[in-house]
Amino acid sequence: MTVTPRHDGRAPDQLRDIRITRNWLDHAEGSALIEFGRTRVLVAASFTEGVPRWLKGQGTGWVTSEYEMLPRSTNTRSDRESRKGKVGGRTHEISRLIGRSLRAIIDTSALGENTIVVDCDVLQADGGTRTASITGAYVALADAVADARARGLIAKNAKPLTDSVAAISVGIVGGVPVLDLDYPEDSTAETDMNVVMTGSGGFVEVQGTAEGAPFDRDELNALLDLAAGGIATLTSLQHEALSGEARERAL
Amino acid sequence: MTVTPRHDGRAPDQLRDIRITRNWLDHAEGSALIEFGRTRVLVAASFTEGVPRWLKGQGTGWVTSEYEMLPRSTNTRSDRESRKGKVGGRTHEISRLIGRSLRAIIDTSALGENTIVVDCDVLQADGGTRTASITGAYVALADAVADARARGLIAKNAKPLTDSVAAISVGIVGGVPVLDLDYPEDSTAETDMNVVMTGSGGFVEVQGTAEGAPFDRDELNALLDLAAGGIATLTSLQHEALSGEARERAL
Amino acid sequence: MTVTPRHDGRAPDQLRDIRITRNWLDHAEGSALIEFGRTRVLVAASFTEGVPRWLKGQGTGWVTSEYEMLPRSTNTRSDRESRKGKVGGRTHEISRLIGRSLRAIIDTSALGENTIVVDCDVLQADGGTRTASITGAYVALADAVADARARGLIAKNAKPLTDSVAAISVGIVGGVPVLDLDYPEDSTAETDMNVVMTGSGGFVEVQGTAEGAPFDRDELNALLDLAAGGIATLTSLQHEALSGEARERAL
Amino acid sequence: MTVTPRHDGRAPDQLRDIRITRNWLDHAEGSALIEFGRTRVLVAASFTEGVPRWLKGQGTGWVTSEYEMLPRSTNTRSDRESRKGKVGGRTHEISRLIGRSLRAIIDTSALGENTIVVDCDVLQADGGTRTASITGAYVALADAVADARARGLIAKNAKPLTDSVAAISVGIVGGVPVLDLDYPEDSTAETDMNVVMTGSGGFVEVQGTAEGAPFDRDELNALLDLAAGGIATLTSLQHEALSGEARERAL
Amino acid sequence: MTVTPRHDGRAPDQLRDIRITRNWLDHAEGSALIEFGRTRVLVAASFTEGVPRWLKGQGTGWVTSEYEMLPRSTNTRSDRESRKGKVGGRTHEISRLIGRSLRAIIDTSALGENTIVVDCDVLQADGGTRTASITGAYVALADAVADARARGLIAKNAKPLTDSVAAISVGIVGGVPVLDLDYPEDSTAETDMNVVMTGSGGFVEVQGTAEGAPFDRDELNALLDLAAGGIATLTSLQHEALSGEARERAL
Amino acid sequence: MTVTPRHDGRAPDQLRDIRITRNWLDHAEGSALIEFGRTRVLVAASFTEGVPRWLKGQGTGWVTSEYEMLPRSTNTRSDRESRKGKVGGRTHEISRLIGRSLRAIIDTSALGENTIVVDCDVLQADGGTRTASITGAYVALADAVADARARGLIAKNAKPLTDSVAAISVGIVGGVPVLDLDYPEDSTAETDMNVVMTGSGGFVEVQGTAEGAPFDRDELNALLDLAAGGIATLTSLQHEALSGEARERAL
Repeated sequence: MTVTPRHDGRAPDQLRDIRITRNWLDHAEGSALIEFGRTRVLVAASFTEGVPRWLKGQGTGWVTSEYEMLPRSTNTRSDRESRKGKVGGRTHEISRLIGRSLRAIIDTSALGENTIVVDCDVLQADGGTRTASITGAYVALADAVADARARGLIAKNAKPLTDSVAAISVGIVGGVPVLDLDYPEDSTAETDMNVVMTGSGGFVEVQGTAEGAPFDRDELNALLDLAAGGIATLTSLQHEALSGEARERAL
Repeated sequence: MTVTPRHDGRAPDQLRDIRITRNWLDHAEGSALIEFGRTRVLVAASFTEGVPRWLKGQGTGWVTSEYEMLPRSTNTRSDRESRKGKVGGRTHEISRLIGRSLRAIIDTSALGENTIVVDCDVLQADGGTRTASITGAYVALADAVADARARGLIAKNAKPLTDSVAAISVGIVGGVPVLDLDYPEDSTAETDMNVVMTGSGGFVEVQGTAEGAPFDRDELNALLDLAAGGIATLTSLQHEALSGEARERAL
Repeated sequence: MTVTPRHDGRAPDQLRDIRITRNWLDHAEGSALIEFGRTRVLVAASFTEGVPRWLKGQGTGWVTSEYEMLPRSTNTRSDRESRKGKVGGRTHEISRLIGRSLRAIIDTSALGENTIVVDCDVLQADGGTRTASITGAYVALADAVADARARGLIAKNAKPLTDSVAAISVGIVGGVPVLDLDYPEDSTAETDMNVVMTGSGGFVEVQGTAEGAPFDRDELNALLDLAAGGIATLTSLQHEALSGEARERAL
Repeated sequence: MTVTPRHDGRAPDQLRDIRITRNWLDHAEGSALIEFGRTRVLVAASFTEGVPRWLKGQGTGWVTSEYEMLPRSTNTRSDRESRKGKVGGRTHEISRLIGRSLRAIIDTSALGENTIVVDCDVLQADGGTRTASITGAYVALADAVADARARGLIAKNAKPLTDSVAAISVGIVGGVPVLDLDYPEDSTAETDMNVVMTGSGGFVEVQGTAEGAPFDRDELNALLDLAAGGIATLTSLQHEALSGEARERAL
Repeated sequence: MTVTPRHDGRAPDQLRDIRITRNWLDHAEGSALIEFGRTRVLVAASFTEGVPRWLKGQGTGWVTSEYEMLPRSTNTRSDRESRKGKVGGRTHEISRLIGRSLRAIIDTSALGENTIVVDCDVLQADGGTRTASITGAYVALADAVADARARGLIAKNAKPLTDSVAAISVGIVGGVPVLDLDYPEDSTAETDMNVVMTGSGGFVEVQGTAEGAPFDRDELNALLDLAAGGIATLTSLQHEALSGEARERAL
Repeated sequence: MTVTPRHDGRAPDQLRDIRITRNWLDHAEGSALIEFGRTRVLVAASFTEGVPRWLKGQGTGWVTSEYEMLPRSTNTRSDRESRKGKVGGRTHEISRLIGRSLRAIIDTSALGENTIVVDCDVLQADGGTRTASITGAYVALADAVADARARGLIAKNAKPLTDSVAAISVGIVGGVPVLDLDYPEDSTAETDMNVVMTGSGGFVEVQGTAEGAPFDRDELNALLDLAAGGIATLTSLQHEALSGEARERAL
């Protein structure tokens, strides 16, 4: 792939600096502060006994997610959705995407009748907040599952996690397919795609949108190739974060 | 492609019966009742002068969409979102998808400072409501644009429509890639994908989701091939509906 | 009664063309598309087991209704109540009126602890949407009751329907009492009255409003006479629609 | 009319004790505490310059009303609509009725571009809250108009009030038509009717509802006769309250 | 303390005319109309069996309060919170303060699993609405407790009331500490403090706010002295209102 | 003061570890991550041109604040206020307190017609979230003012900040007055008080609440003494944070 000048000097297939600070919170069963460059998302996984009413008595658990942006995570302040009294369409859409992505690698029958809610709160936004959320959410979820097993809330031999999951954005910027768009790139991309994949390389979700002109099969293929490479790196970073001791919060 | 038994006897690459009744409404600038089998969506395009505040003074127009399901469009009755006091995530998500799809084939600068809102109300749901909505919305939008030109609200030589747009669902059901899933297929599909394409064959939106196991590149390619075929047929039906006299409502 | 020129050529005591398409929907236990001229309302009756909490354990059922207008049913588009986050006063008022009208001809003790919700969604509005709703709602309700009996959800010999019910508007337009006002008449009427009557001729609801000058007893009497005549015709049409085979949807 | 035993010993055509305490409030341009027996409604008319946006520039004014019940006005406490986050259907319906009734005797073109909002807050409810509200609202409205004229906010010779207006409930209880139902009567009435009339005897609003069996023309006529008598008395009491000095609040 | 001219001629340590009309309502278990000068609050205490879910099974009761202002209680009309669809911060804050104040003198374990809700509705506002509410709420609460005991809903020997409670505002106006500020004083005060005390002289709540310049310890002490004097008087008036027969409503 | 055993070994007059990380965010005009022990609040000050409508044309600016807790900031997860569709009373109350505290040290006339919104989002809660918010908010506010001056949005010689402001909680725990309560202390305190003071030692806000038995004047005085000491330390830490270079985010 030819190296094209990106505004921050990255190669087209280069991720931003990725940092995962595991256990950033003291109360949550699992948590992480994940950073994709200047994008910073605080993820907290909360394990609670019981399931929503529509699932009761079926012996299976539930994993869901809520995403939200702090009002000044963005360049100019946005109104709080709590003050507006309603949750916007974009917030709903991303919350649903994260939930689906996590459920793709969870065997809910192995959870018992328990619920894990994964909150993804964007502290600072610079593009890629949904992909950072999914990538960090897996780390928090894995810790919440481990914690539940350690406390005997799920069976010792239960394996609710069937794989890992991570996500990355790709897009066509200035005619060139690039990986992990930051906000300036995202807002000028001709095509924008978010790809969610498992650690073993299967697709969980592919969402491509033509922002300007429609895209063709070749462009689609180039973007999927880029994404697969990026996700492989994120998968490594997740495993690294989860291996060994939970690091002290390094604030 | 081998013919696989579908529960309604269709070939894997066969659409349901598609009917487009143009001008089903008397008041709207453009309208259509579109049917994909038992799925029936009433689409109304409303042209109004002026644009939302954030667009004022830029000389360009706006196209947006709102999607909603009637409470008894489904097998069992759902509560109205108006009574619940909030619009659900799925409703928001589909409304946004329809709007983006229409804007992909509209040159808003040719609209002048005018707005077209396209309402897609699902009267009966049997799978594919979002793809039927997009496909019907194009017909209503084209008529609203023609009406505005005829009334001198946009310039005689303005060409706001740069292409046509249509959408179809594809998925893997029982291991077989199939086109235009109805509800029984949709609820058992392993992978579900909605594809939005222009009449000239470019991708506007690709949204694939693994409902069960992750999917791979080959499956993705098979689904995209199926979608391209279905969309070509829908494009013909749209042009047929829009050609000649606006048919009388044939209720 | 002297024939006075109405803008559409009808005699003062003449209804618009009334069409009732029974079973317009496939899922609902009872349904009808009812048309009073250009006014078109889609009615769906949904039978569900169980009753609202405040009725539990009393052995009686419940019938209620929800009315709503599609955003482009009217001449100019109105905002959706779901997006505004609240249901307007007029919508509430008409929903309540339809519910009361239906309960007037239902013996809820014969329903068992079951609920029928009748949704009336106005697809196109040209005056008389509430009276068309009530008249169509009876047809859908009767089918939902028959369906429940056929499926053994209510007792074979139970007779929840004690009568039929229909509704019509009357008003004084240009000094002349007229029947079944369309929108242009309704918006210029001096007095506007909605009358709900049973098939056997009893009053269920009389709602008269002076829009301009107050009205007197003689005018009130003339309007009630007109209404009684119109309702007799509607009652015949309801029985005709319900007799014989359920007609195929004749779109 | 034969005297039938009512639970409180009244004759069928007898009102409860009616008290109108004019100017119960110090801030409002017009106000009254009106009592129909134990039913007590505090009415406040607020005059403000300007009109709602949809009326601007037409040179006419606006009169509207808001009705609400205090949570413990009733026998058992009800939840506040402000806490539920939405206004109920009954509240909307009565607010709209009061507004229409007042507009029937107001010449809005004589008001100039000014608005009068009449708040009717039920402090204690024992049946007839909407009729007490309308009857008291006229008194408050008349004072607000007088106050505006005195302060030069409307022309000295403008006559916005074209008549007076009052309201009363009638109904059939135990087979007997009776006037001014209290709560025990209201909750057992077979037919319930609210009648709004001008001081000069014209009908503004007639709302009759069969609570049990449908009613016939004779019963309707008997109820309208009763109402006319009651309203004549209320009209006298209104004029008495408004004549002479504004009485001191007599708490 | 030097006597400083207040706009209404009161001495700095002088309360406005205080009137407590006990049992102003017929339905409520306890009620009072309390007046601090022109400020008038209608208080109703409602006793209901059962407690909120989070208290169930603990054998203790609950006391809470809701405060609200009528739209025209103020000099210019305010929008209803029910119409705005949300309760404002100030309303919440005062409701919570009243609830805490009442719970300070209630032994909830002596209430059994019962709830008392005290509604404080401001009919007219002229400063001090929260302190009038608390002072009146105690009277209504005491009557509701007595009523529950008389009806055997709480044990004959249970003593849920451990003390009385009252509240008063103090502030620094024109450099002088004064008691019981009316609206003109409140809106120009440099420091504003609300003090809630028990009948036996303990502090329940002290809320002081510098509206202009910060205040110092000496000023704080002077204000607390004033408050203690005022509360002693209010305590006497409460006991007087509650002693002997419940007075007839003296409207 | 005698040293009393606190559960974490602190002396009664000892603060928790206080950390202020200035400029934790990249976009906001001023920001800080402030920690009182395990309590962590992210504060962002947003400067925008213009003022709310009710202030327009008066030449003065506005400072306000919004406080909110992340759902998993607490020991067990709380529902999001955005999802509940309404902001709770406690959230409103604290937001208002922070806003008032900041306005006490701002000369809004020196701001010009500009608004500063200070968002305080609690990332982790362990008692004292409102006092940490106020203390951190001053730092962010000071930076936002400096930034506006540097960019010429307010006059070079304007001095909107008239003082500094900080806050601390004090309370009586186990009979002993203590400073800066953490959550275990806060939830068992007999009396709880929040004190807001300026850097020069004036009181801005004093809010004391008896959680159990009422408190007396001596206890009140002891608590105020403790608070004054704690605030002096916080004031030093604020000045230290604001002096010299803005530190790099030290994550």
